[in-house]
Amino acid sequence: MTIYQANILFTSSPTQFEVYERGYIAVDEQGVVQGVYHSLPDGLIYDQLVDFGDKLLIPAMNDLHVHAPQFCNMGIAMDMQLIPWLNTYVFPEEAKFADEAYAETVYHSFVSELWRQGTMRAAVFATSHTPATQILARSFADAGMGALIGLVGMDRHAPENLCNTPISWVSGMKALVDTMAEMPLVKPIITPRFIPSCTPEMLQTMGEMAQQTTLPVQSHLSENQQEIAWVQELEPASTCYGDAYHRYGLFGDTPTLMAHCCYTEGEELRLMREQNVCVVHCPTSNCNLASGIAPVRKFLQAGLNVVLGSDIAGGHHLSMFRVMQYAVQMSKLQYVSSNGQYPFLTLSEVFYMATKAGGAFFGQVGSFEPGYTFDALVIDDLCLSPHSIDATSPIHRLERFIYLGDDRHIQHRFCQGNEINQP
Amino acid sequence: MTIYQANILFTSSPTQFEVYERGYIAVDEQGVVQGVYHSLPDGLIYDQLVDFGDKLLIPAMNDLHVHAPQFCNMGIAMDMQLIPWLNTYVFPEEAKFADEAYAETVYHSFVSELWRQGTMRAAVFATSHTPATQILARSFADAGMGALIGLVGMDRHAPENLCNTPISWVSGMKALVDTMAEMPLVKPIITPRFIPSCTPEMLQTMGEMAQQTTLPVQSHLSENQQEIAWVQELEPASTCYGDAYHRYGLFGDTPTLMAHCCYTEGEELRLMREQNVCVVHCPTSNCNLASGIAPVRKFLQAGLNVVLGSDIAGGHHLSMFRVMQYAVQMSKLQYVSSNGQYPFLTLSEVFYMATKAGGAFFGQVGSFEPGYTFDALVIDDLCLSPHSIDATSPIHRLERFIYLGDDRHIQHRFCQGNEINQP
Repeated sequence: MTIYQANILFTSSPTQFEVYERGYIAVDEQGVVQGVYHSLPDGLIYDQLVDFGDKLLIPAMNDLHVHAPQFCNMGIAMDMQLIPWLNTYVFPEEAKFADEAYAETVYHSFVSELWRQGTMRAAVFATSHTPATQILARSFADAGMGALIGLVGMDRHAPENLCNTPISWVSGMKALVDTMAEMPLVKPIITPRFIPSCTPEMLQTMGEMAQQTTLPVQSHLSENQQEIAWVQELEPASTCYGDAYHRYGLFGDTPTLMAHCCYTEGEELRLMREQNVCVVHCPTSNCNLASGIAPVRKFLQAGLNVVLGSDIAGGHHLSMFRVMQYAVQMSKLQYVSSNGQYPFLTLSEVFYMATKAGGAFFGQVGSFEPGYTFDALVIDDLCLSPHSIDATSPIHRLERFIYLGDDRHIQHRFCQGNEINQP
Repeated sequence: MTIYQANILFTSSPTQFEVYERGYIAVDEQGVVQGVYHSLPDGLIYDQLVDFGDKLLIPAMNDLHVHAPQFCNMGIAMDMQLIPWLNTYVFPEEAKFADEAYAETVYHSFVSELWRQGTMRAAVFATSHTPATQILARSFADAGMGALIGLVGMDRHAPENLCNTPISWVSGMKALVDTMAEMPLVKPIITPRFIPSCTPEMLQTMGEMAQQTTLPVQSHLSENQQEIAWVQELEPASTCYGDAYHRYGLFGDTPTLMAHCCYTEGEELRLMREQNVCVVHCPTSNCNLASGIAPVRKFLQAGLNVVLGSDIAGGHHLSMFRVMQYAVQMSKLQYVSSNGQYPFLTLSEVFYMATKAGGAFFGQVGSFEPGYTFDALVIDDLCLSPHSIDATSPIHRLERFIYLGDDRHIQHRFCQGNEINQP
């Protein structure tokens, strides 16, 4: 048993931070939290006590929607909307991942940058290339970090060199499952790119695999009005975009992540609640691609589960702290435009989304309650508050780090109880 | 004469970047640009050539709305709107500037942080305390950086220890003018906090000083609907919020900066155009304080001059690159909500706002055209693009720096021709 001492903050519920000023957290040999305390209990037996002094100790970040092969497009070409941007920038870059050496280099950098930004687990879109996707899995496993990794299925409306077929996708998934057999923190996820990229045969095949394997599913939903209209043309029998997935068993029959949902309402919202489909809110991407902003407060009021995603390279930055900022800020604009009908998101709500709500897709991850695995960051924020640190509460210190801090202020990173060094 | 060689980018107009790949810029002993060249002209005589290799060379940033005494509030308490936030967080912090030692410490840190973020000139609100405001002026002058500094006038609806009187404000301004006599880059600016904080006598006094001295004016305008209603109550004879300033000679009779303008339209917009009043767009602040977003494209279409401000601590970050990002992103949300009626801002447009348009308030500043003073940043962005730097155009490199970079990537800073070291 190891005891870590620090200013501990986490959110077991969205409504508030739990704060242990100069508190203690006990972590066992399996990396599982045994307890969190304001003062050390009498008689607690432990091997070592690691004192992080006045620093902050928080759960590590979980990014529930990110495109690894778009890493090199991050921060450029922010002048287009979804469909032309896919054709001009995204697809040509993704085609490069036929080259395993290129994949090796870029995916290593990608995992290293996730680490740098304090993200220890991610739900990741790869490309349609099996060898490159195996390389991505190995990059996470070698780093000791967690991931759900999707070999992308796409067999229409995309350049031929990026397309696979239902048959080649299935054999790719089998190869991926084999590769991941010895990787405790890296698992596969069924990943149709989105309805426009997948024929009914592809969707059918993917849905069947979901039923057989109970593997989770991730995709894109109702990001852009032009896209929604296109889906309605392609799947005229569906009652809404979400129903186009549902008809193939890809909408909540197994744990399901749907990114964006900027225009989800009515029947689609009802179906998501009924099927317990999780919204991945990607506010930076929604801004950059001029998609519009998902009505997150409305989703929460309707009882939907909402997590956060960086969605690079639609999003411009891998930091989930940056994504939290935008989630609060965008909700404030919705608060104004709704004349106060939809209260804006609080810091504890967005923190909960990036930790406990997102972590749930990787096991007992994202909180410091007993039984949770110790995924954690030590934040050395002292240089952010040179004149008033003593007078600043841990919550204000965390808030300031979220708004002003960066990777320089993350001093230690833990995943599943292990300290992770830069990959 | 000194020649600097680098990848040079600037915007002499909002419509596009001028790019000199591995180009040259000639700067004379007074720090004035004599020419910018794709290749060195035959027979050009110079003392030294400084080669910045493959790095980017761009004009330095100008921040046209920033509250120096709110530096310690940056990034905290982002859970309130304007009026309660002023009362709970802003005023108590500003009251501390009665203490000159506190002012010395915080203002030094503030100027140092501006430097770190690449901002070489700023239009700054101080407090109503004359000695602290003199300290702020000295901090800029000692650093070799440029500023317009306002001793804030406020004599109602604020804590007594923050209020001054028309008489004490005038004597404070005279002291400030004396202090600045020997500071070539630091000048005073007439600064009513905003209409609710100033009695008619205070506004009258300030307007008279503007007429007599031709000093510029800065204040806040139409930030928040609650505030606008309050102004209408306080100045019932005015046709709009802007007219409340105009009636006292504080709205364009001398060069005038008005921050926010989130709800400016109709008569106010007409008056701003007629009086050539400049909008300071503060998108980070407008998000954080749930104010709403200024309709910048509409302003540009109407022929208004628009510049950018960080507005800390309403804004959460001093980086003008971050502010540019938000300006583009917010305009994309307006593009969506207007069904495409208002095209979103381009990168060259927001860059122009933060350089040449903003720089105009400090002289011939913000461009590299001949006759402009050499305010510049050298950007070492190579580590931002490890895998594709050779294939990336200078404009995409600049864009990536704006979205992903930070102070670590700013290698040199020049103001008025001099390299500026960390204050």
